[in-house]
Amino acid sequence: MTYCIGMRLNQGLVFMSDTRTSAGVDNFAVAKKMFTWNVPGERAITIMTAGNLATTQSLISLLEERSKSPEDRNPSILAADTMFQIARLVGATLKEVIADSAPSGQTASDKFGASVIVGGQIHGGQPAIFMIYPAGNFIEVTEDTPFFQIGETKYGKPILIRAYDPAMSFEDAVKLLLVSFDSTVKSNLSVGMPFDLQIYESGSLDSSRVSRIEEDDPVYHAISSGWGAALRDAFTKLPSYRV
Amino acid sequence: MTYCIGMRLNQGLVFMSDTRTSAGVDNFAVAKKMFTWNVPGERAITIMTAGNLATTQSLISLLEERSKSPEDRNPSILAADTMFQIARLVGATLKEVIADSAPSGQTASDKFGASVIVGGQIHGGQPAIFMIYPAGNFIEVTEDTPFFQIGETKYGKPILIRAYDPAMSFEDAVKLLLVSFDSTVKSNLSVGMPFDLQIYESGSLDSSRVSRIEEDDPVYHAISSGWGAALRDAFTKLPSYRV
Repeated sequence: MTYCIGMRLNQGLVFMSDTRTSAGVDNFAVAKKMFTWNVPGERAITIMTAGNLATTQSLISLLEERSKSPEDRNPSILAADTMFQIARLVGATLKEVIADSAPSGQTASDKFGASVIVGGQIHGGQPAIFMIYPAGNFIEVTEDTPFFQIGETKYGKPILIRAYDPAMSFEDAVKLLLVSFDSTVKSNLSVGMPFDLQIYESGSLDSSRVSRIEEDDPVYHAISSGWGAALRDAFTKLPSYRV
Repeated sequence: MTYCIGMRLNQGLVFMSDTRTSAGVDNFAVAKKMFTWNVPGERAITIMTAGNLATTQSLISLLEERSKSPEDRNPSILAADTMFQIARLVGATLKEVIADSAPSGQTASDKFGASVIVGGQIHGGQPAIFMIYPAGNFIEVTEDTPFFQIGETKYGKPILIRAYDPAMSFEDAVKLLLVSFDSTVKSNLSVGMPFDLQIYESGSLDSSRVSRIEEDDPVYHAISSGWGAALRDAFTKLPSYRV
Protein backbone atom coordinates (compact mmCIF):
# COMPACT_ATOMS: atom_id res chain seq x y z
CA MET A 1 0.00 0.00 0.00
CA THR A 2 0.94 3.64 -0.06
CA TYR A 3 -0.27 6.92 1.27
CA CYS A 4 0.08 10.20 -0.63
CA ILE A 5 -1.69 13.52 -0.27
CA GLY A 6 -1.65 16.47 -2.62
CA MET A 7 -3.24 19.58 -1.14
CA ARG A 8 -3.99 23.01 -2.54
CA LEU A 9 -3.78 26.04 -0.28
CA ASN A 10 -4.17 29.72 -1.04
CA GLN A 11 -0.40 29.99 -0.68
CA GLY A 12 0.46 27.11 -2.94
CA LEU A 13 0.62 23.33 -3.02
CA VAL A 14 1.84 20.75 -0.52
CA PHE A 15 2.67 17.14 -1.35
CA MET A 16 3.52 14.31 1.01
CA SER A 17 4.12 10.63 0.32
CA ASP A 18 5.24 7.64 2.31
CA THR A 19 8.03 5.42 0.99
CA ARG A 20 7.07 1.86 1.84
CA THR A 21 6.43 -0.68 -0.88
CA SER A 22 5.41 -4.19 -0.06
CA ALA A 23 4.64 -7.41 -1.85
CA GLY A 24 3.30 -9.05 1.28
CA VAL A 25 4.44 -8.35 4.81
CA ASP A 26 7.55 -10.50 4.32
CA ASN A 27 8.82 -8.44 1.45
CA PHE A 28 8.93 -4.70 1.89
CA ALA A 29 11.33 -1.99 0.87
CA VAL A 30 11.80 1.75 0.73
CA ALA A 31 10.90 3.32 -2.60
CA LYS A 32 10.45 6.92 -3.55
CA LYS A 33 6.96 7.77 -4.74
CA MET A 34 7.37 11.48 -5.35
CA PHE A 35 9.04 12.79 -8.51
CA THR A 36 9.62 16.33 -9.71
CA TRP A 37 10.38 17.97 -13.02
CA ASN A 38 11.45 21.55 -12.71
CA VAL A 39 12.46 24.16 -15.26
CA PRO A 40 12.98 27.14 -12.94
CA GLY A 41 10.91 30.10 -13.98
CA GLU A 42 8.95 28.02 -16.50
CA ARG A 43 7.37 24.96 -14.90
CA ALA A 44 7.33 22.91 -11.70
CA ILE A 45 5.68 19.51 -11.86
CA THR A 46 5.31 16.95 -9.09
CA ILE A 47 3.99 13.42 -9.50
CA MET A 48 3.14 10.95 -6.74
CA THR A 49 2.22 7.34 -7.43
CA ALA A 50 0.33 4.53 -5.70
CA GLY A 51 -0.32 0.99 -6.85
CA ASN A 52 1.66 -1.69 -8.62
CA LEU A 53 5.35 -0.73 -8.36
CA ALA A 54 6.27 -2.16 -11.77
CA THR A 55 3.56 -0.01 -13.33
CA THR A 56 4.47 3.18 -11.49
CA GLN A 57 8.20 2.80 -12.14
CA SER A 58 7.52 2.23 -15.84
CA LEU A 59 5.30 5.29 -15.89
CA ILE A 60 7.94 7.50 -14.31
CA SER A 61 10.70 6.07 -16.52
CA LEU A 62 8.68 6.66 -19.67
CA LEU A 63 7.85 10.22 -18.66
CA GLU A 64 11.48 10.82 -17.77
CA GLU A 65 12.86 9.27 -20.95
CA ARG A 66 10.49 11.21 -23.18
CA SER A 67 11.37 14.45 -21.45
CA LYS A 68 15.06 13.82 -22.19
CA SER A 69 15.25 12.84 -25.84
CA PRO A 70 14.58 16.03 -27.82
CA GLU A 71 13.16 14.25 -30.88
CA ASP A 72 10.64 12.60 -28.61
CA ARG A 73 10.04 15.80 -26.65
CA ASN A 74 6.54 16.21 -28.00
CA PRO A 75 4.49 14.99 -26.16
CA SER A 76 6.54 15.48 -23.01
CA ILE A 77 5.82 16.91 -19.63
CA LEU A 78 8.55 19.43 -20.37
CA ALA A 79 6.76 20.53 -23.55
CA ALA A 80 3.08 20.57 -22.57
CA ASP A 81 1.59 24.05 -22.37
CA THR A 82 -0.81 23.64 -19.47
CA MET A 83 -1.27 21.52 -16.37
CA PHE A 84 -4.37 20.06 -17.99
CA GLN A 85 -2.27 18.87 -20.94
CA ILE A 86 0.21 17.35 -18.51
CA ALA A 87 -2.59 15.46 -16.75
CA ARG A 88 -3.78 14.15 -20.13
CA LEU A 89 -0.27 13.09 -21.01
CA VAL A 90 0.34 11.31 -17.73
CA GLY A 91 -3.07 9.64 -17.99
CA ALA A 92 -2.35 8.41 -21.51
CA THR A 93 1.07 7.13 -20.47
CA LEU A 94 -0.37 5.34 -17.45
CA LYS A 95 -3.00 3.67 -19.61
CA GLU A 96 -0.29 2.63 -22.06
CA VAL A 97 1.84 1.05 -19.32
CA ILE A 98 -1.10 -0.87 -17.87
CA ALA A 99 -2.16 -2.05 -21.34
CA ASP A 100 1.41 -3.25 -21.99
CA SER A 101 1.30 -5.47 -18.90
CA ALA A 102 -2.25 -6.72 -19.20
CA PRO A 103 -2.27 -9.06 -22.21
CA SER A 104 0.63 -11.25 -21.02
CA GLY A 105 -1.49 -13.98 -19.54
CA GLN A 106 -3.04 -12.01 -16.71
CA THR A 107 -6.73 -11.35 -17.14
CA ALA A 108 -7.38 -9.10 -14.17
CA SER A 109 -5.77 -6.00 -15.60
CA ASP A 110 -6.48 -3.97 -12.48
CA LYS A 111 -3.75 -6.01 -10.77
CA PHE A 112 -1.39 -3.76 -12.67
CA GLY A 113 -3.34 -0.65 -11.76
CA ALA A 114 -1.99 2.52 -10.27
CA SER A 115 -3.29 5.91 -9.23
CA VAL A 116 -1.34 9.08 -9.68
CA ILE A 117 -1.46 12.58 -8.28
CA VAL A 118 -0.01 15.25 -10.58
CA GLY A 119 0.39 18.80 -9.39
CA GLY A 120 2.32 21.92 -10.12
CA GLN A 121 2.28 25.09 -12.15
CA ILE A 122 3.30 26.25 -15.59
CA HIS A 123 4.20 29.85 -16.35
CA GLY A 124 1.03 31.73 -17.25
CA GLY A 125 -1.28 29.26 -15.48
CA GLN A 126 -2.57 28.63 -12.00
CA PRO A 127 -1.26 25.94 -9.64
CA ALA A 128 -3.35 22.80 -10.02
CA ILE A 129 -3.54 19.23 -8.77
CA PHE A 130 -5.04 16.29 -10.66
CA MET A 131 -5.81 12.74 -9.64
CA ILE A 132 -5.38 10.24 -12.45
CA TYR A 133 -7.11 6.88 -12.51
CA PRO A 134 -5.79 3.64 -14.04
CA ALA A 135 -8.14 4.18 -17.01
CA GLY A 136 -6.19 7.33 -17.84
CA ASN A 137 -8.99 9.77 -17.02
CA PHE A 138 -8.63 12.27 -14.20
CA ILE A 139 -10.21 14.86 -11.93
CA GLU A 140 -8.92 18.21 -10.69
CA VAL A 141 -9.00 19.73 -7.22
CA THR A 142 -11.73 22.27 -6.66
CA GLU A 143 -12.64 24.52 -3.78
CA ASP A 144 -15.02 21.83 -2.57
CA THR A 145 -12.45 19.06 -2.81
CA PRO A 146 -9.18 20.84 -2.10
CA PHE A 147 -6.99 17.77 -1.63
CA PHE A 148 -6.52 14.31 -3.11
CA GLN A 149 -5.39 11.17 -1.34
CA ILE A 150 -4.23 7.96 -2.99
CA GLY A 151 -3.40 4.58 -1.46
CA GLU A 152 -4.58 3.88 2.09
CA THR A 153 -6.83 6.92 2.31
CA LYS A 154 -9.33 6.13 5.02
CA TYR A 155 -7.54 6.25 8.36
CA GLY A 156 -6.15 9.71 7.75
CA LYS A 157 -9.18 11.31 6.15
CA PRO A 158 -11.32 12.40 9.15
CA ILE A 159 -8.69 14.83 10.46
CA LEU A 160 -8.13 16.27 6.98
CA ILE A 161 -11.84 16.97 6.65
CA ARG A 162 -12.03 18.58 10.07
CA ALA A 163 -8.90 20.71 10.13
CA TYR A 164 -8.24 21.73 6.53
CA ASP A 165 -8.49 25.43 5.83
CA PRO A 166 -7.37 26.89 2.47
CA ALA A 167 -5.91 29.91 4.28
CA MET A 168 -3.65 27.83 6.52
CA SER A 169 0.10 28.37 6.47
CA PHE A 170 2.53 25.86 5.00
CA GLU A 171 3.68 25.05 8.55
CA ASP A 172 0.13 24.21 9.62
CA ALA A 173 -0.52 22.24 6.45
CA VAL A 174 2.57 20.10 7.00
CA LYS A 175 1.51 19.57 10.60
CA LEU A 176 -1.93 18.47 9.37
CA LEU A 177 -0.40 16.08 6.85
CA LEU A 178 1.87 14.62 9.52
CA VAL A 179 -1.11 13.99 11.81
CA SER A 180 -2.96 12.33 8.96
CA PHE A 181 0.09 10.20 8.05
CA ASP A 182 0.65 9.34 11.70
CA SER A 183 -2.89 7.96 12.04
CA THR A 184 -2.32 5.91 8.90
CA VAL A 185 1.06 4.39 9.79
CA LYS A 186 -0.33 3.46 13.21
CA SER A 187 -3.17 1.51 11.54
CA ASN A 188 -1.66 0.02 8.38
CA LEU A 189 1.73 -1.71 8.35
CA SER A 190 2.08 -1.26 4.61
CA VAL A 191 2.41 2.51 4.99
CA GLY A 192 5.75 3.47 6.46
CA MET A 193 8.34 6.14 7.10
CA PRO A 194 10.30 8.08 5.97
CA PHE A 195 7.94 10.59 4.37
CA ASP A 196 8.78 12.76 1.40
CA LEU A 197 7.56 16.34 1.54
CA GLN A 198 7.40 19.04 -1.04
CA ILE A 199 6.19 22.58 -0.62
CA TYR A 200 5.39 24.61 -3.69
CA GLU A 201 4.76 28.32 -3.35
CA SER A 202 2.31 29.74 -5.89
CA GLY A 203 4.05 31.53 -8.72
CA SER A 204 7.54 30.48 -7.66
CA LEU A 205 7.90 27.90 -10.46
CA ASP A 206 10.50 26.33 -8.20
CA SER A 207 10.06 22.83 -6.82
CA SER A 208 13.26 22.66 -4.82
CA ARG A 209 11.64 22.82 -1.37
CA VAL A 210 11.82 19.07 -0.96
CA SER A 211 12.68 17.29 2.24
CA ARG A 212 12.52 13.84 3.76
CA ILE A 213 11.09 13.31 7.23
CA GLU A 214 12.97 10.44 8.83
CA GLU A 215 11.83 8.12 11.58
CA ASP A 216 13.91 9.88 14.21
CA ASP A 217 12.66 13.37 13.36
CA PRO A 218 12.09 15.05 16.74
CA VAL A 219 9.27 17.33 15.56
CA TYR A 220 7.41 14.41 14.00
CA HIS A 221 7.76 12.50 17.26
CA ALA A 222 6.49 15.47 19.23
CA ILE A 223 3.50 15.77 16.88
CA SER A 224 2.80 12.05 16.99
CA SER A 225 2.90 11.69 20.76
CA GLY A 226 1.37 15.11 21.29
CA TRP A 227 -1.53 14.19 19.04
CA GLY A 228 -2.31 11.08 21.05
CA ALA A 229 -2.32 13.10 24.25
CA ALA A 230 -4.30 15.93 22.66
CA LEU A 231 -6.93 13.49 21.38
CA ARG A 232 -7.37 11.93 24.81
CA ASP A 233 -7.53 15.39 26.35
CA ALA A 234 -10.09 16.59 23.80
CA PHE A 235 -12.06 13.41 24.37
CA THR A 236 -12.35 13.91 28.13
CA LYS A 237 -13.72 17.42 27.57
CA LEU A 238 -16.63 16.21 25.45
CA PRO A 239 -20.03 15.89 27.13
CA SER A 240 -20.82 12.40 28.40
CA TYR A 241 -23.60 10.31 26.97
CA ARG A 242 -25.67 9.30 29.99
CA VAL A 243 -26.45 5.59 29.76
CA MET B 1 -21.88 -0.94 4.24
CA THR B 2 -22.30 -1.08 7.96
CA TYR B 3 -20.42 -0.13 11.06
CA CYS B 4 -20.59 -2.14 14.29
CA ILE B 5 -18.31 -2.23 17.31
CA GLY B 6 -18.29 -4.71 20.16
CA MET B 7 -16.03 -3.66 23.02
CA ARG B 8 -15.01 -5.35 26.24
CA LEU B 9 -14.42 -3.25 29.34
CA ASN B 10 -13.61 -4.28 32.88
CA GLN B 11 -17.20 -3.37 33.75
CA GLY B 12 -18.82 -5.31 30.96
CA LEU B 13 -19.55 -5.15 27.25
CA VAL B 14 -20.73 -2.35 24.97
CA PHE B 15 -22.21 -2.85 21.51
CA MET B 16 -23.08 -0.23 18.93
CA SER B 17 -24.32 -0.61 15.36
CA ASP B 18 -25.54 1.69 12.64
CA THR B 19 -28.80 0.92 10.84
CA ARG B 20 -28.24 1.82 7.20
CA THR B 21 -28.43 -0.82 4.50
CA SER B 22 -27.80 0.02 0.90
CA ALA B 23 -27.81 -1.69 -2.45
CA GLY B 24 -26.25 1.28 -4.16
CA VAL B 25 -26.69 4.92 -3.20
CA ASP B 26 -30.11 5.01 -4.87
CA ASN B 27 -31.52 2.25 -2.71
CA PHE B 28 -31.01 2.50 1.00
CA ALA B 29 -33.12 1.72 4.02
CA VAL B 30 -33.05 1.44 7.79
CA ALA B 31 -32.47 -2.06 9.10
CA LYS B 32 -31.66 -3.27 12.56
CA LYS B 33 -28.31 -5.01 12.81
CA MET B 34 -28.28 -5.76 16.53
CA PHE B 35 -30.21 -8.69 17.97
CA THR B 36 -30.44 -9.99 21.51
CA TRP B 37 -31.48 -13.24 23.16
CA ASN B 38 -31.93 -12.96 26.86
CA VAL B 39 -32.95 -15.48 29.51
CA PRO B 40 -32.63 -13.28 32.60
CA GLY B 41 -30.34 -14.80 35.16
CA GLU B 42 -29.14 -17.46 32.73
CA ARG B 43 -27.79 -15.95 29.51
CA ALA B 44 -27.57 -12.69 27.59
CA ILE B 45 -26.47 -12.91 23.96
CA THR B 46 -26.05 -10.07 21.48
CA ILE B 47 -25.34 -10.48 17.78
CA MET B 48 -24.44 -7.75 15.30
CA THR B 49 -24.18 -8.37 11.57
CA ALA B 50 -22.47 -6.80 8.56
CA GLY B 51 -22.55 -7.84 4.93
CA ASN B 52 -25.16 -9.13 2.53
CA LEU B 53 -28.57 -8.37 4.06
CA ALA B 54 -30.21 -11.51 2.68
CA THR B 55 -27.50 -13.57 4.33
CA THR B 56 -27.63 -11.81 7.69
CA GLN B 57 -31.43 -11.85 7.86
CA SER B 58 -31.45 -15.57 7.08
CA LEU B 59 -28.83 -16.13 9.74
CA ILE B 60 -30.84 -14.30 12.39
CA SER B 61 -34.09 -15.99 11.32
CA LEU B 62 -32.53 -19.44 11.49
CA LEU B 63 -31.03 -18.76 14.91
CA GLU B 64 -34.35 -17.36 16.09
CA GLU B 65 -36.43 -20.21 14.68
CA ARG B 66 -34.18 -22.87 16.16
CA SER B 67 -34.29 -21.22 19.53
CA LYS B 68 -38.11 -21.35 19.48
CA SER B 69 -39.01 -24.87 18.40
CA PRO B 70 -38.19 -27.12 21.37
CA GLU B 71 -37.55 -30.26 19.28
CA ASP B 72 -34.98 -28.31 17.33
CA ARG B 73 -33.63 -26.62 20.44
CA ASN B 74 -30.37 -28.51 20.28
CA PRO B 75 -28.27 -26.95 18.81
CA SER B 76 -29.67 -23.56 19.75
CA ILE B 77 -28.21 -20.41 21.17
CA LEU B 78 -30.62 -20.86 24.06
CA ALA B 79 -29.23 -24.34 24.78
CA ALA B 80 -25.46 -23.92 24.29
CA ASP B 81 -23.46 -24.13 27.50
CA THR B 82 -20.71 -21.61 26.81
CA MET B 83 -20.10 -18.50 24.74
CA PHE B 84 -17.54 -20.50 22.78
CA GLN B 85 -20.24 -23.03 21.83
CA ILE B 86 -22.49 -20.17 20.78
CA ALA B 87 -19.77 -18.75 18.56
CA ARG B 88 -19.33 -22.20 16.97
CA LEU B 89 -23.06 -22.48 16.43
CA VAL B 90 -23.38 -19.03 14.87
CA GLY B 91 -20.33 -19.72 12.69
CA ALA B 92 -21.79 -23.02 11.47
CA THR B 93 -25.16 -21.41 10.77
CA LEU B 94 -23.54 -18.55 8.88
CA LYS B 95 -21.55 -20.99 6.76
CA GLU B 96 -24.74 -22.94 6.05
CA VAL B 97 -26.62 -19.82 4.92
CA ILE B 98 -23.81 -18.73 2.61
CA ALA B 99 -23.49 -22.25 1.17
CA ASP B 100 -27.25 -22.29 0.50
CA SER B 101 -26.98 -19.15 -1.62
CA ALA B 102 -23.76 -19.92 -3.41
CA PRO B 103 -24.55 -22.76 -5.83
CA SER B 104 -27.50 -21.06 -7.52
CA GLY B 105 -25.60 -19.73 -10.49
CA GLN B 106 -23.38 -17.28 -8.66
CA THR B 107 -19.74 -18.29 -8.59
CA ALA B 108 -18.31 -15.56 -6.37
CA SER B 109 -19.65 -16.92 -3.10
CA ASP B 110 -18.16 -14.09 -1.10
CA LYS B 111 -20.82 -11.84 -2.65
CA PHE B 112 -23.10 -13.48 -0.11
CA GLY B 113 -20.60 -13.07 2.69
CA ALA B 114 -21.22 -11.55 6.07
CA SER B 115 -19.30 -10.90 9.24
CA VAL B 116 -20.81 -11.23 12.66
CA ILE B 117 -19.94 -10.06 16.15
CA VAL B 118 -21.32 -12.26 18.94
CA GLY B 119 -21.02 -11.21 22.55
CA GLY B 120 -22.55 -11.82 25.91
CA GLN B 121 -22.35 -14.00 28.95
CA ILE B 122 -23.74 -17.32 30.15
CA HIS B 123 -24.19 -18.11 33.83
CA GLY B 124 -20.96 -19.59 35.15
CA GLY B 125 -18.80 -18.08 32.40
CA GLN B 126 -17.08 -14.80 31.70
CA PRO B 127 -18.38 -12.11 29.31
CA ALA B 128 -16.86 -12.64 25.89
CA ILE B 129 -17.00 -11.23 22.38
CA PHE B 130 -16.28 -13.16 19.19
CA MET B 131 -15.88 -12.04 15.59
CA ILE B 132 -17.13 -14.63 13.10
CA TYR B 133 -15.94 -14.78 9.51
CA PRO B 134 -17.95 -15.90 6.45
CA ALA B 135 -16.05 -19.21 6.54
CA GLY B 136 -17.61 -19.91 9.92
CA ASN B 137 -14.39 -19.66 11.92
CA PHE B 138 -13.92 -16.97 14.54
CA ILE B 139 -11.64 -15.11 16.93
CA GLU B 140 -12.20 -13.88 20.47
CA VAL B 141 -11.35 -10.55 22.07
CA THR B 142 -8.20 -10.55 24.17
CA GLU B 143 -6.54 -7.95 26.33
CA ASP B 144 -4.42 -6.97 23.34
CA THR B 145 -7.39 -6.68 21.00
CA PRO B 146 -10.19 -5.60 23.30
CA PHE B 147 -12.72 -4.63 20.63
CA PHE B 148 -13.92 -5.82 17.24
CA GLN B 149 -15.21 -3.71 14.37
CA ILE B 150 -17.08 -4.99 11.33
CA GLY B 151 -18.14 -3.17 8.18
CA GLU B 152 -16.53 0.19 7.42
CA THR B 153 -13.84 -0.09 10.07
CA LYS B 154 -11.09 2.25 8.98
CA TYR B 155 -12.30 5.82 9.50
CA GLY B 156 -13.25 5.23 13.11
CA LYS B 157 -10.30 3.11 14.17
CA PRO B 158 -7.59 5.68 14.99
CA ILE B 159 -9.59 7.25 17.85
CA LEU B 160 -10.46 3.81 19.25
CA ILE B 161 -6.79 2.89 19.35
CA ARG B 162 -5.82 6.14 21.02
CA ALA B 163 -8.55 6.55 23.60
CA TYR B 164 -9.61 3.04 24.60
CA ASP B 165 -8.94 2.09 28.20
CA PRO B 166 -10.34 -1.14 29.71
CA ALA B 167 -11.04 0.69 32.97
CA MET B 168 -13.19 3.36 31.34
CA SER B 169 -16.80 3.85 32.45
CA PHE B 170 -19.77 2.91 30.29
CA GLU B 171 -20.44 6.64 29.79
CA ASP B 172 -16.94 7.20 28.45
CA ALA B 173 -17.10 4.09 26.31
CA VAL B 174 -20.34 5.22 24.69
CA LYS B 175 -18.83 8.64 24.12
CA LEU B 176 -15.82 6.97 22.47
CA LEU B 177 -18.06 4.84 20.27
CA LEU B 178 -20.07 7.91 19.26
CA VAL B 179 -16.89 9.75 18.26
CA SER B 180 -15.79 6.74 16.22
CA PHE B 181 -19.22 6.44 14.58
CA ASP B 182 -19.32 10.16 13.93
CA SER B 183 -16.00 10.04 12.03
CA THR B 184 -17.37 7.14 9.99
CA VAL B 185 -20.76 8.61 9.03
CA LYS B 186 -18.98 11.83 8.02
CA SER B 187 -16.77 9.86 5.61
CA ASN B 188 -18.96 7.05 4.25
CA LEU B 189 -22.53 7.64 3.06
CA SER B 190 -23.39 3.97 3.45
CA VAL B 191 -23.10 4.18 7.23
CA GLY B 192 -26.00 6.09 8.75
CA MET B 193 -28.02 6.96 11.79
CA PRO B 194 -29.84 6.02 13.97
CA PHE B 195 -27.41 3.96 16.03
CA ASP B 196 -28.39 1.03 18.23
CA LEU B 197 -26.65 0.80 21.58
CA GLN B 198 -26.50 -1.92 24.13
CA ILE B 199 -24.71 -1.90 27.45
CA TYR B 200 -24.13 -5.15 29.22
CA GLU B 201 -22.90 -5.13 32.80
CA SER B 202 -20.70 -8.08 33.76
CA GLY B 203 -22.59 -10.71 35.68
CA SER B 204 -26.00 -9.08 35.24
CA LEU B 205 -27.17 -11.66 32.64
CA ASP B 206 -29.58 -8.95 31.58
CA SER B 207 -29.43 -7.43 28.10
CA SER B 208 -32.29 -4.97 28.48
CA ARG B 209 -30.14 -1.84 28.50
CA VAL B 210 -30.77 -1.18 24.84
CA SER B 211 -31.40 2.21 23.32
CA ARG B 212 -31.52 3.86 19.95
CA ILE B 213 -29.64 7.10 19.29
CA GLU B 214 -31.65 9.14 16.80
CA GLU B 215 -30.41 11.80 14.43
CA ASP B 216 -31.76 14.61 16.58
CA ASP B 217 -30.18 13.38 19.80
CA PRO B 218 -28.83 16.56 21.48
CA VAL B 219 -25.94 14.83 23.26
CA TYR B 220 -24.80 13.17 20.05
CA HIS B 221 -24.92 16.54 18.32
CA ALA B 222 -22.92 18.12 21.12
CA ILE B 223 -20.34 15.34 20.89
CA SER B 224 -20.17 15.57 17.10
CA SER B 225 -19.74 19.33 16.89
CA GLY B 226 -17.64 19.41 20.06
CA TRP B 227 -15.31 16.81 18.62
CA GLY B 228 -14.69 18.86 15.49
CA ALA B 229 -13.88 21.91 17.59
CA ALA B 230 -11.79 19.87 20.03
CA LEU B 231 -9.77 18.36 17.17
CA ARG B 232 -9.04 21.76 15.67
CA ASP B 233 -8.13 23.06 19.12
CA ALA B 234 -5.86 20.09 19.81
CA PHE B 235 -4.32 20.54 16.38
CA THR B 236 -3.37 24.18 16.97
CA LYS B 237 -1.59 23.23 20.20
CA LEU B 238 0.75 20.78 18.47
CA PRO B 239 4.26 21.96 17.67
CA SER B 240 4.71 23.29 14.13
CA TYR B 241 6.89 21.58 11.58
CA ARG B 242 9.22 24.30 10.37
CA VAL B 243 9.40 24.19 6.57
